[in-house]
Amino acid sequence: MNEVFGGVCAAKGFIASGVHCGIRKGHPKKDLALIVSSVPAAAAAVYTKNLVRSAPIEVTKAHLANGSARAVIVNSGIANTCCADGIEIAEKMCVLAADALGIPADDVVVASTGVIGQSLPIEPIQSGMQPLVSSLSREGADAACEAIMTTDTVKKQIAVEFTAGGKTCRIGGMAKGSGMIHPNMATMLVFLTTDAAISPELLHEALLTDVASTFNMTSVDGDTSTNDMVTILANGLAGNECIVEKDEDFKAFMQALNTVTVWLCRQIAADGEGATKLLECYVEGAPNEQTAKTVAKSIICSSLVKTAMFGADANWGRVLCAIGYSGADVDVKKISVQFRSNGGNITVCENGAGIPFSEEKAKAILLEKEIEILVGLHDGTASAKAWGCDLTYDYVKINGDYRT
Amino acid sequence: MNEVFGGVCAAKGFIASGVHCGIRKGHPKKDLALIVSSVPAAAAAVYTKNLVRSAPIEVTKAHLANGSARAVIVNSGIANTCCADGIEIAEKMCVLAADALGIPADDVVVASTGVIGQSLPIEPIQSGMQPLVSSLSREGADAACEAIMTTDTVKKQIAVEFTAGGKTCRIGGMAKGSGMIHPNMATMLVFLTTDAAISPELLHEALLTDVASTFNMTSVDGDTSTNDMVTILANGLAGNECIVEKDEDFKAFMQALNTVTVWLCRQIAADGEGATKLLECYVEGAPNEQTAKTVAKSIICSSLVKTAMFGADANWGRVLCAIGYSGADVDVKKISVQFRSNGGNITVCENGAGIPFSEEKAKAILLEKEIEILVGLHDGTASAKAWGCDLTYDYVKINGDYRT
Repeated sequence: MNEVFGGVCAAKGFIASGVHCGIRKGHPKKDLALIVSSVPAAAAAVYTKNLVRSAPIEVTKAHLANGSARAVIVNSGIANTCCADGIEIAEKMCVLAADALGIPADDVVVASTGVIGQSLPIEPIQSGMQPLVSSLSREGADAACEAIMTTDTVKKQIAVEFTAGGKTCRIGGMAKGSGMIHPNMATMLVFLTTDAAISPELLHEALLTDVASTFNMTSVDGDTSTNDMVTILANGLAGNECIVEKDEDFKAFMQALNTVTVWLCRQIAADGEGATKLLECYVEGAPNEQTAKTVAKSIICSSLVKTAMFGADANWGRVLCAIGYSGADVDVKKISVQFRSNGGNITVCENGAGIPFSEEKAKAILLEKEIEILVGLHDGTASAKAWGCDLTYDYVKINGDYRT
Repeated sequence: MNEVFGGVCAAKGFIASGVHCGIRKGHPKKDLALIVSSVPAAAAAVYTKNLVRSAPIEVTKAHLANGSARAVIVNSGIANTCCADGIEIAEKMCVLAADALGIPADDVVVASTGVIGQSLPIEPIQSGMQPLVSSLSREGADAACEAIMTTDTVKKQIAVEFTAGGKTCRIGGMAKGSGMIHPNMATMLVFLTTDAAISPELLHEALLTDVASTFNMTSVDGDTSTNDMVTILANGLAGNECIVEKDEDFKAFMQALNTVTVWLCRQIAADGEGATKLLECYVEGAPNEQTAKTVAKSIICSSLVKTAMFGADANWGRVLCAIGYSGADVDVKKISVQFRSNGGNITVCENGAGIPFSEEKAKAILLEKEIEILVGLHDGTASAKAWGCDLTYDYVKINGDYRT
């Protein structure tokens, strides 16, 4: 599998664009994005489990009922959530895009991200639609990726090439992360495109399966967003024989999908609001996968572990504390903990108790940008990974006054 | 019910003391506390549900099996958790105190708070025991309260007077809070004393019932400590007829207990690590108490709500978001949200959607030190309260390098 350029436009038949239309006054950044497939594509999505859900999620759900779509319209700045006119506005966004593209409105996926509770004005989207459609191109992935950012500091996109049915296929994606990241079924906004031919049923299953061990294992701040959505469009233009069963091609597809999603998860975690470090927690030796997942996620979510990592402090007691309250049934007396990074690795706890270690060496390891927390439960063979970030002054700063 | 002076020494027959014995090198503050009842007392305790539990909790559990105790020994600085020799050290602490006081070792309750995973040296406790016992007095509550503090910035103690069986009784308590506060069954360390006569069975039931709506509804950072413990000693010296059934006297006792515990919860939340504001969330109109509790606690625990409060930002969308992911079954379309403080009150959300409000007035309200977040679910008559604090730069600072 090779990494290739082009993000959501890497796969054949996809074009994209992003423009500034002025959704929030005084915010000069791009705020409206469009992705279009030249032919109808199989489509699937997973959504937040938050009971408070954005209006675009409701509209997208209805539009994807037939497992097919051709375009994705997204705005940043305002979330279109908790507004009386939300559904109406989200539907209008689809109609505006559909009319400009000459496709049916129910072939459009719609998403929003930004402040909750403010009404989303339709005028800027209306006036921005023409420039948006005119600038659609194979090179538009960058602009689209930029247009969905809010407090993100870097664009998050990737694409890879794989082989299915003897044909070269591509799958690419872009994500918008940063804060309110503790996905439950989906993370903030992720858009995936592939030219592989795959049935809508298998596409949906592939996405569900993958999300459970990728986006659902990522957390920035423990707050599950109201707007979380991951969507994938598969337009079949790679010319492979359509994947309709769980054969080798499906495996290759799943592997490529996972490569893209894990990369995006790591990017989302590393660029979490205020983050200075990417944390990856790997739990092994668990009696089952759920136990490993529960433990890994509890550690990644602990404010005390996160602040310790910010301070490069090998305070492993907080790791054990987070395991203990996770709800997982573990034998505390068997737990081992190791910290690892480009600076080396160091074991700090064995059999549930501290062992002598060099604080100096530990500090050097934890001063790196990417930290692995390795936990051994020594009670089985299952494992799981979770991704998160440190908790910093800047997280407080960014969120102490986000709206103004 | 009147508030009275004296904390844990307010009730008849209780004396206390606190000294510096030098558990952590270079930490000059008092670190060893003792509370003693002049006669054997009915005793009860609740403990953390964290699977990783401090050694003193195991020892205390064994000592309280008979529902009776006479003394409490507590150290701060080192938690005596995740150490191979933990139980031995905790038992030794009890023996040292018991020998100095001339009572059986199993009449001693032991507790520790501080860094997890470091071995607790017995020498300073041994050498500190004589000064500790010599300074026991009715005026010793202050010193004891100071000796159990870690990152706490204020002493937390209170006592009240009530009437049971025609006799004046008192109940007092002290607490140590600050960080790693998200109690599940008990909060950090809380010691309560009363001279009311009450059976060990009812004492235990009273404590369990009260804790469920007080300490278990308090959170600073979502991290459930390994050392959480609330204990109560009732020595009967008030001379009231022993409370053995759920009569009017039991009600008066419960009310006095609740007054003390709610006050301590508010103190713990207000003095949460780095906190500048006390948050009290009151949820009403719930179909049942559990729903109200789940919603209130989810709001109090949200990092995004906490940072918004720090920034005095009326970002009510985050309150709705936290309700939505709480797991409680609520009708989003009915929710109302109001902020209240000494600066006034303002409704910001009705029927699950924003309503126009003065940002200026909201700011003035949220700039106060004590903020109430009032949530109406409009779906029943049950209610609940939860206590928390804002998330600030100083929380990150304190926890980025706690050990060094």
